[in-house]
Amino acid sequence: MPQTYQFARPALTVDIVVFALDQDDLQVMLIQRDIEPFSGQWALPGGFVRVDETLDAAAERELREETGLTDIFLEQLYTFGDLGRDPRERVITVAYYALVNLAGHAVHASSDARNAAWFPVNELPELAFDHQQILNAALKRLRGKVRYQPIGFELLPEKFTLRQLQHLYEIILDRQLDKRNFRKKVHSMEILKATNEIETDVAHRAAQLYRFNKKAYDRLTKQGFNFEI
Amino acid sequence: MPQTYQFARPALTVDIVVFALDQDDLQVMLIQRDIEPFSGQWALPGGFVRVDETLDAAAERELREETGLTDIFLEQLYTFGDLGRDPRERVITVAYYALVNLAGHAVHASSDARNAAWFPVNELPELAFDHQQILNAALKRLRGKVRYQPIGFELLPEKFTLRQLQHLYEIILDRQLDKRNFRKKVHSMEILKATNEIETDVAHRAAQLYRFNKKAYDRLTKQGFNFEI
Repeated sequence: MPQTYQFARPALTVDIVVFALDQDDLQVMLIQRDIEPFSGQWALPGGFVRVDETLDAAAERELREETGLTDIFLEQLYTFGDLGRDPRERVITVAYYALVNLAGHAVHASSDARNAAWFPVNELPELAFDHQQILNAALKRLRGKVRYQPIGFELLPEKFTLRQLQHLYEIILDRQLDKRNFRKKVHSMEILKATNEIETDVAHRAAQLYRFNKKAYDRLTKQGFNFEI
Repeated sequence: MPQTYQFARPALTVDIVVFALDQDDLQVMLIQRDIEPFSGQWALPGGFVRVDETLDAAAERELREETGLTDIFLEQLYTFGDLGRDPRERVITVAYYALVNLAGHAVHASSDARNAAWFPVNELPELAFDHQQILNAALKRLRGKVRYQPIGFELLPEKFTLRQLQHLYEIILDRQLDKRNFRKKVHSMEILKATNEIETDVAHRAAQLYRFNKKAYDRLTKQGFNFEI
């Protein structure tokens, strides 16, 4: 194939910030590096883009290879190209972020035997490369987006209580929300469908389970809304 | 320098969607190509990223070289990496968008003697590569962002009338806005500072000129707002 540009080229990678929600925290998936540079340190899952695969395909492949996660919400975040971000040579990375519902996905250590683990975003180890900066950008995007798109809902199980939904917003926005205002707002969005079921295996009084109205959800994702609470 | 990755690498470019506002339309800057592929066709300004420059620096350099524009609002948009987007070989492009106030910036044909010109976004020629797709993404970003950040204001001269401000929103959002609601909303944002001046050289009754309150503007840019009108 003819080369359009004969000079030195940067290497190109993808890195993925995978968010999940547990009882108390927003979690992020990290991989422990077993090669230099930063051997032994934790980093975002990711790797080199092959010349014959799209960026989305590279992100999906790296995620699958390094964490076992497939079929999850994945969106391009930003491309990071600072000169010194990789000590080996010039490497530019297209960052993605992913949202995953922990209940539906098993996460395992990667095939190349490195450790993969979840960490609360507020208690992270020191990260390799500029991965802390990438993670901060992903958090900012997530916090911005929940205010005008129903994006955080990807983090919930299929059926959930209003308490769980509020908890999701509180964790992402990192502040307490007023229960009455929150419910009023959510109901006015007409995005929820009540099921006939209630939650099971809970110590407190069992609450009604809801699911999303897919059509209303997709419409809101497209047109946006204002979730100031 | 050691190479981290010995396999074939995609080439890397930047492309820039430059928006400006005139009396009637949102305009975009295009360059007429004088080399293959797509010789003679119009394209976004852009070019290859050098191995020793950041992505932002590459976008600024290409913009300066191809259009003469400097010191304008420039933000990374999205990275496009479809396999067939360049017929020569695998080329990945980091797209930027820029906003420019036509009054303050002279635009000239590029140093390598190609034509540079403004086109209304609704009357574009056929574009080279996937540049129509990139332009659509930039338009979508711009239309989304004016609803929650005071971003479009970069397109106005330093002093402007409320009519001009409304016109900017109407052009970006591509619909008529109610004058009374618009002004109420704008004043409630406390983002404007009245000057003692009125516009000059107008056929109609001269209106008061405003400027932005830089502090309030920056605060709103950071925290966002909801401009549903």
